[in-house]
Amino acid sequence: MRGWLNDAKSYIPPVQIDEVMRAIGVGKVIASNHKYFKVDDYVYGITGVQQYAISDGKRYHKVDPNLAPLPVYTSTLGMTGMTAYFGILEVGELKEGDNVLVSGAAGAVGSVVGQIAKIKNANVIGIAGGAEKCKYLTDVLGFDGAIDYKNDDINAKLKEYFPKGIDVFFDNVGGEILDAALSRLAMHARVVICGAISQYNNKTDVKGPSNYLSLLVNRASMKGMVVFDYAKDYEKAAMQMGQWMMQGKLKSKEDIYEGIENFYDTFLRLFSGDKLGKLVLKVNEE
Amino acid sequence: MRGWLNDAKSYIPPVQIDEVMRAIGVGKVIASNHKYFKVDDYVYGITGVQQYAISDGKRYHKVDPNLAPLPVYTSTLGMTGMTAYFGILEVGELKEGDNVLVSGAAGAVGSVVGQIAKIKNANVIGIAGGAEKCKYLTDVLGFDGAIDYKNDDINAKLKEYFPKGIDVFFDNVGGEILDAALSRLAMHARVVICGAISQYNNKTDVKGPSNYLSLLVNRASMKGMVVFDYAKDYEKAAMQMGQWMMQGKLKSKEDIYEGIENFYDTFLRLFSGDKLGKLVLKVNEE
Repeated sequence: MRGWLNDAKSYIPPVQIDEVMRAIGVGKVIASNHKYFKVDDYVYGITGVQQYAISDGKRYHKVDPNLAPLPVYTSTLGMTGMTAYFGILEVGELKEGDNVLVSGAAGAVGSVVGQIAKIKNANVIGIAGGAEKCKYLTDVLGFDGAIDYKNDDINAKLKEYFPKGIDVFFDNVGGEILDAALSRLAMHARVVICGAISQYNNKTDVKGPSNYLSLLVNRASMKGMVVFDYAKDYEKAAMQMGQWMMQGKLKSKEDIYEGIENFYDTFLRLFSGDKLGKLVLKVNEE
Repeated sequence: MRGWLNDAKSYIPPVQIDEVMRAIGVGKVIASNHKYFKVDDYVYGITGVQQYAISDGKRYHKVDPNLAPLPVYTSTLGMTGMTAYFGILEVGELKEGDNVLVSGAAGAVGSVVGQIAKIKNANVIGIAGGAEKCKYLTDVLGFDGAIDYKNDDINAKLKEYFPKGIDVFFDNVGGEILDAALSRLAMHARVVICGAISQYNNKTDVKGPSNYLSLLVNRASMKGMVVFDYAKDYEKAAMQMGQWMMQGKLKSKEDIYEGIENFYDTFLRLFSGDKLGKLVLKVNEE
């Protein structure tokens, strides 16, 4: 959402001034002339940040609140979960036994990435801000270790956790953490660039990764991803994710705030890090 | 060779102070107890920067001065040519019709990369320093266009030459040129990191590519390469390169200086750019 506010060429046109802010949401149909979507259906789509949305139904689909709570459809069973799933498995080419590092690991995407990697028998270390989040990663989500970027010496911890180097680094944050991880890559490592939350509000240039020549030394690759490219396989992935959730192998965590008037303050939590899991804003009573 | 002088983990141990500088060379056998290498054979191997070398024959092989002049074995038929061949075809995954950009294009590797891409029916633009080198790229090597980084507006030229974006960028230089190319990538572009000549003598940190998030927007990849990984296919590649040379499709250019006492000044030409093609130092009379 932050990227959509920059006036720059991207994978989707920027949101214009005075337009409704673009957002993916879940809602209930209260009136319909559509033959497929009926009153009282629950739907998922690009609702925007608003209490009522009108749609022709394109790129909307129905969701079932009996299978999972509605907020889960905005997180692990929505784009967030799909990003994690295809990012670690397809772009990251995860293999059993890989040593995996995830940044933004207590966030919506990162927490799912790490759990999927654990399901696939990887050794998973997460980077997050603060002791509480780190404890959450290891004690609740089952990560093998956690690095607190606010208090730990990141380079020292990476050396300790990755004596043989990092096979897959899934990066949500960029900046100094990306550089630290690059300096610790294993041969043929894969770096997945999913985001760069540390850089989005820069008033100067983005900090490029000074250690990018580690890609050369280690014959490694750094790849960008945009989840929309995997649309044809969303359903298969969502079924797999749902199954893992039912088996208790995959936990979905939403941090829910209320009131459309609180959008701005809630949005800023993405950058302060003052949230756990997927940040969701509830704009209407059910 | 410049990288081997840094006291840092790399794909090969650094050269130590007081050791002979590591170098690949061609020489003539003047005495031998080896059953395969005989007096008057010509050989290729890691000779070091010296007039006489002693070897157990490991990782040396014979070359035939009747098939190609000896300096060509240090360039297009040696590691340089192999780097170009596997870099553009394997790492860059070159496809017919691709729009290809090569930096350091009048250099040893870049000039071969561009010519191979032309043989494979790509549209090829080279970046080099000065009008003379640029003219060489288009008029002698058959590139479709050239950008003079010392005098042209690189971003404007990239926009002009790549209206649909860059499919493959083969980078030998790093720094601002890498950033400019990243800002012009096509969807699913491949960036091959072969070197970063602009950064090797930095006394401060390497300048990381600020525009690396273009990898995300364009679902692109940036991959490092080290030619040694392709050793098992060297012979096949050398035969193909030799064939192209005999057919007149591939030109090998060496810039030859003389006298071992001139090693240092000759070496510095790599960084000043005051050379064309492969820089070779002749340390003995034949």
